[in-house]
Amino acid sequence: MENSRDKSLRDLIVVNNLGGLLFWRTEEHVLSTGYLPLWGVSVCRYPASGKPILYIPELEPRDRLPEGVEIKTFPWGIIDCADPWEVLFNTIKEDIFKRGIDHLPLGYVPHFGQTAPPLMSGEGAPLPLDFLKRIQAIPVKGLRDVTGPMLELYMVKQPHEIEAIALSNKIAGIGIKAFYHHLEPGISEAEVASVVEAAVQNQMGKNGVEYAKAWPLIMSGPNTAYGGTFNRTTGKKLVSGELVMIEMAICVNGYWADITRTGTTGNVQPELLAIYEIVKEAQQMAIAAVKPEITGGELDQIARNYIDKKGYGDYYNHALGHHVGFRYHDPGPGLSPQSDLRLKEGMVLTIEPGIYGEELGGGCRIEDNVLVTASGHEILSDFSRALNPLSRDSF
Amino acid sequence: MENSRDKSLRDLIVVNNLGGLLFWRTEEHVLSTGYLPLWGVSVCRYPASGKPILYIPELEPRDRLPEGVEIKTFPWGIIDCADPWEVLFNTIKEDIFKRGIDHLPLGYVPHFGQTAPPLMSGEGAPLPLDFLKRIQAIPVKGLRDVTGPMLELYMVKQPHEIEAIALSNKIAGIGIKAFYHHLEPGISEAEVASVVEAAVQNQMGKNGVEYAKAWPLIMSGPNTAYGGTFNRTTGKKLVSGELVMIEMAICVNGYWADITRTGTTGNVQPELLAIYEIVKEAQQMAIAAVKPEITGGELDQIARNYIDKKGYGDYYNHALGHHVGFRYHDPGPGLSPQSDLRLKEGMVLTIEPGIYGEELGGGCRIEDNVLVTASGHEILSDFSRALNPLSRDSF
Repeated sequence: MENSRDKSLRDLIVVNNLGGLLFWRTEEHVLSTGYLPLWGVSVCRYPASGKPILYIPELEPRDRLPEGVEIKTFPWGIIDCADPWEVLFNTIKEDIFKRGIDHLPLGYVPHFGQTAPPLMSGEGAPLPLDFLKRIQAIPVKGLRDVTGPMLELYMVKQPHEIEAIALSNKIAGIGIKAFYHHLEPGISEAEVASVVEAAVQNQMGKNGVEYAKAWPLIMSGPNTAYGGTFNRTTGKKLVSGELVMIEMAICVNGYWADITRTGTTGNVQPELLAIYEIVKEAQQMAIAAVKPEITGGELDQIARNYIDKKGYGDYYNHALGHHVGFRYHDPGPGLSPQSDLRLKEGMVLTIEPGIYGEELGGGCRIEDNVLVTASGHEILSDFSRALNPLSRDSF
Repeated sequence: MENSRDKSLRDLIVVNNLGGLLFWRTEEHVLSTGYLPLWGVSVCRYPASGKPILYIPELEPRDRLPEGVEIKTFPWGIIDCADPWEVLFNTIKEDIFKRGIDHLPLGYVPHFGQTAPPLMSGEGAPLPLDFLKRIQAIPVKGLRDVTGPMLELYMVKQPHEIEAIALSNKIAGIGIKAFYHHLEPGISEAEVASVVEAAVQNQMGKNGVEYAKAWPLIMSGPNTAYGGTFNRTTGKKLVSGELVMIEMAICVNGYWADITRTGTTGNVQPELLAIYEIVKEAQQMAIAAVKPEITGGELDQIARNYIDKKGYGDYYNHALGHHVGFRYHDPGPGLSPQSDLRLKEGMVLTIEPGIYGEELGGGCRIEDNVLVTASGHEILSDFSRALNPLSRDSF
């Protein structure tokens, strides 16, 4: 497999005078070798030259490992091994020594907080408390934080990654269709979330989808008033005349989309319909302006000014969007009032204005994932944004 | 609300000569005040006396905050606030100064790796990279790691927690029933996972269930051969004559259960049926022995010796069980060959022997959550363990 990230990773190593890179977070695995860890304890050593080495637990499945890498195992989870980490760290240390790079620091991205989950996503990766201290002790010169240069790599997606993110968006569309299909009075928010989750997960094993999982959050009626402050599913039943929002994280084969739609159970009061049209227009104006060289702040202002002008500025309480693809929210400067992010071809950004308020009786947001192209943009989530698309036959 | 954890937390503070405790992980919130964070950025300061203080983001929902705590907010996620963390850390610092405890260290549990997810579980808590460094800098004397004494608190569940874990197990039973109901040739593993997930999530809003989420993993036929090394759902379709395993993490209102059942699509070959009976017998023998004062190693040996004696010792490649309740896998010494854990009333442990192997053509595991009582034990997940319980009318 041709790995189009290879050259930029090697360049990063050389420019920073490093002995290589050490990665263990899910997103760095996906970016560097395309590998999606199951247990979450695998470490990648990306050298200045030669094959990248994946140190994986013996328990890890072998049928989806990337090509072009060297695989070494360590006895994590093996019942009679008291300290598998000692084995792992010693192996890495020996390998570095043998390669003659033990006098150089290695680059890494420190792990904390907001990180994509491994496949077993019911809890964080089972790394030990002293993992960071012990892995930092491996090279004599320690580890050097390369978050800055890695951010540059994160923000500009490569063709194979764009294809993968587009697939994630396509599968998201199947979930969104299930969402619209179930907007009937009497069904609970939790039940709507369940059918969306099922629609996405059921794509596994079809059309190149090996792994698919969605985290849909459904808010209806008065609950939509808080859609700008938090997203949360409850057991509330849908009733006639409500707006219904879906906020959804979705991961397909390790690549993420982040989608919001607002639908209705019918007969919504006029002000909420008006708000919907304003949000939709603001979003369309911002998307239309997406192209290389425009800044994040300028894009944010396009949507914000329009909503302001319509009198709802106080009800739009968040930024316009963020990078997406390696996780639910990719790092880096996004689309917000003061952002000086300058858009480049290959960036994938969410565009997600909204209006919400208790005194408005609810709220709505529309969120799409937009690729910056050489000449402008392409909407990766270009399925319906109508309030009730099924009756309009627009799917 | 009477908080039965209150006295032991105050004692921990006094005995260790601390100025209080600082918590931010989901599990410490749930244990100390019963609060289940949504965004994952809330901090709890538990003082030696007086009400615990919850520092929550302004965006956090207010309708499920615990009673008996003081609430302070900080502007995380507010669009025009450049550094909400500075506000948070300064507020905590001032509060500590005002309380006259700024000369004492505060206790904390370092955050790394295996942590329960916040409600927005598509990614880890959105804490900044320098969170730990900055929060450690708050008390002049720094933070002191109290993982050791906290572990003691984790391992012995209080009556209100046992009730909550029992509810989580009860809801798990609804998911397991859906699992058995769908074991038909032609349905994919992913589809089975979806219906289980839906059955659990649909309980939200009913009978005291405010939040319910399951992470079911389904393995069928040859895929069950790896059930002892990893659990993973694929798009494989079930065919007649297979064993089918479900491994499921489930969180209800912040409290966790961890359940495994093995079912069948019918007409399974004799050796696999024999394996199933051996695992079931081994599990029943281990469960029957659960009582205060027995050690984790002794319990492990009961199941292991039986499986050894039957000739399958080489195919049982993991420990017998672990603590459960505050997350999918609670910390602390569990049930494994060398474990000197001495069981106490109030502990909740999984009991989960298994036999698996490629050359056996598959594998199976049965996992229950067992409470240690004064006189013995109570099985919290006491729903059917039969291979095909629906035809036997045993639900």
